[in-house]
Amino acid sequence: MNTQIIHVPEGTITSPAGFQAGAICAPIKAKNRLGLAILYSENRCSAAGVFTTNTVKAPSVLLSQKHLSNGNACAIVANSGCANACMGEQGINDAKEIINLTAEKLNISPEDVLIASTGVIGMPLPMNNIRRGIKSIKISPHGGHEMAQAIITTDTRTKEIAVNCEIAQRKITIGGIAKGAGMLCPDMATMLCFLTTDAAIESSCLQSILKNVADDTYNMLNIDGDTSTNDTVICLANGACGNKIIRDNTPEAALFQLALSEVCHFLTKELARDAEGATKLIEVTVESAQSITDARQAAHTIVGSSLVKAAIYGSEANWGRVFAALGRSKIKIEPTKVDIFMADICVVKNGCPVRFDQKDIVAKLHNKEVNIKVCLNDGHYKATAWGCDLTQEYVIINSSMIT
Amino acid sequence: MNTQIIHVPEGTITSPAGFQAGAICAPIKAKNRLGLAILYSENRCSAAGVFTTNTVKAPSVLLSQKHLSNGNACAIVANSGCANACMGEQGINDAKEIINLTAEKLNISPEDVLIASTGVIGMPLPMNNIRRGIKSIKISPHGGHEMAQAIITTDTRTKEIAVNCEIAQRKITIGGIAKGAGMLCPDMATMLCFLTTDAAIESSCLQSILKNVADDTYNMLNIDGDTSTNDTVICLANGACGNKIIRDNTPEAALFQLALSEVCHFLTKELARDAEGATKLIEVTVESAQSITDARQAAHTIVGSSLVKAAIYGSEANWGRVFAALGRSKIKIEPTKVDIFMADICVVKNGCPVRFDQKDIVAKLHNKEVNIKVCLNDGHYKATAWGCDLTQEYVIINSSMIT
Repeated sequence: MNTQIIHVPEGTITSPAGFQAGAICAPIKAKNRLGLAILYSENRCSAAGVFTTNTVKAPSVLLSQKHLSNGNACAIVANSGCANACMGEQGINDAKEIINLTAEKLNISPEDVLIASTGVIGMPLPMNNIRRGIKSIKISPHGGHEMAQAIITTDTRTKEIAVNCEIAQRKITIGGIAKGAGMLCPDMATMLCFLTTDAAIESSCLQSILKNVADDTYNMLNIDGDTSTNDTVICLANGACGNKIIRDNTPEAALFQLALSEVCHFLTKELARDAEGATKLIEVTVESAQSITDARQAAHTIVGSSLVKAAIYGSEANWGRVFAALGRSKIKIEPTKVDIFMADICVVKNGCPVRFDQKDIVAKLHNKEVNIKVCLNDGHYKATAWGCDLTQEYVIINSSMIT
Repeated sequence: MNTQIIHVPEGTITSPAGFQAGAICAPIKAKNRLGLAILYSENRCSAAGVFTTNTVKAPSVLLSQKHLSNGNACAIVANSGCANACMGEQGINDAKEIINLTAEKLNISPEDVLIASTGVIGMPLPMNNIRRGIKSIKISPHGGHEMAQAIITTDTRTKEIAVNCEIAQRKITIGGIAKGAGMLCPDMATMLCFLTTDAAIESSCLQSILKNVADDTYNMLNIDGDTSTNDTVICLANGACGNKIIRDNTPEAALFQLALSEVCHFLTKELARDAEGATKLIEVTVESAQSITDARQAAHTIVGSSLVKAAIYGSEANWGRVFAALGRSKIKIEPTKVDIFMADICVVKNGCPVRFDQKDIVAKLHNKEVNIKVCLNDGHYKATAWGCDLTQEYVIINSSMIT
């Protein structure tokens, strides 16, 4: 089996066959900015989703979870500028109406429509604008980029990708778009991410693959430790490429997971790079841990440490903060076995400082991508987490209510 | 019983009878700055301690824990500028030598000396300077303020207090000093805190009272979510005031706890106020929770949220971030029962937004102390956590290695 995964130039969610998308300004919050979008597949799709673990869930999350219970969907309607969270009955009614209007427009059942919202919590949706907006949105097979633009908030650019690979002699395509910025943490990150594929895949298989991939990607992203009320990752598979349906525990499923993983790793790193105020992507790998849970927890704690993040911003090789974050991560470690590398340079060996060339390491810490590796030398499990540096710009953005 | 607790003007750790202290520059890190200090009581003291929960513990923590195992001590030797953490065998040997030199100087057993260090992780102590320093330190009954100066690092001022109260017809005094600044989080905060009293109290009673008080004060302080390798709170009780010894489960023990609590609340709030880059003290109270653990966890999560902290810095009434932080605190809540108050103004009732005067609330959020109250309306437990706003100054301080 050819397992090569090829990136599609200017790939996006409408790169896979049979998907259409479009967006409009509405306006929701900002005038002259796309803020409302629809994704649609004429073929009914196998559909899977992963959502926020926050106890406070927006109506968009609750309704999408409900509509995914049968494993199928045809469309996603999404808006930015207003999270429609913590709005009581009104919020639920508004979300339902948006679903109904979208279903009417596309002539499908409301149960086949999923919904996602992002933006400020605690403000009502401008329903009149949205009603008009849904009617006016024009969808097309080239509308993926428009939809990517419509979902971003404080992101400085869209995050889009598509890849090809061959599964059982058929070329399948997977596309994805995401928005992130702040409030990005464990169990999802404040993010919306929509994934499409023209492969045919059983919905239960799609759900388990999406969960696996999200655990290694979006759930290993930590921007500021906060978790939103609206986090949503949805994957739609419409089967338009005509492959034999992919089922659980087959080589085809494994290959599909590999390709989806490529898409999601790309988007995860893009989200970290473009996080609020970020100047650097930080990648923390914890190796030789006693369990995958331990490795993930330690990597998460280190990449989320304000002091580590601030040190990387200043290009300081302050490994003491890395070691201290590891120590408070609540996993069992043997401090005298720990090795730490910053920017590929060993700074701690067997728990003790190692002499290193300060100039050399500072130069490497000035790069746009900084890696930190911690070897626990205590087991066989490994995990990687992604985050970004903590900058003055983050504080400026988040001390005024612009998100 | 008269339960009045009176603050002593310019009170410090040498305010209680029988304690002496002194400090010297050494120098350890900064020239012309006090960095090494000794606290001493001729009477052997009941002694209690609470320490960091970080798995990576500095030798100072490990040795103090060991020396406290018999519940007695006569002296504390402390330094700032170097944490002496993650230094392997050398670190342990250096800490032991400092203890031995202090014991020799004071003519007491090394087991009666406790030790505390704070500062940068992963640098060796300048032992020659320390050896000379210990010999040269002059201790006196007026040296408490000097010691308070010697332990601070990025703090902008010393934190000192003493209170009087009457227990069983005797006036007892409790004094305390602390240093904090960054790396302050659950289970202690990166801090050193030394408490003294001339009351006589059984050491097991002192230990349980100190633990209770620390759980409500220092352990409810969250500056940046990081927990240090060196956190140390020690209380010495020398009995110099001649009271009948205070034992567990007596009204006298309760009164002593009240007075110690007053001292520790004062120091906790001072630590939050003077945290790195802080412009505001944030006090978060969670009420009507199902358990004290739930109340504490929710209060901690909210006060530690980067987004909440940044909003308070900008005087923004962004209650959505408070609600989102509550939702991810992993306690069980019923969102539709939640009320939220910011600066005493109700912003959320039964989970839904309440209209409020934006100008009024912004004016109140400009105060130096901001309170946030969350009523879960779901139980009978309450907890308060303290923290500070997240400012550009915090990032500036922590992106260059000056701590």
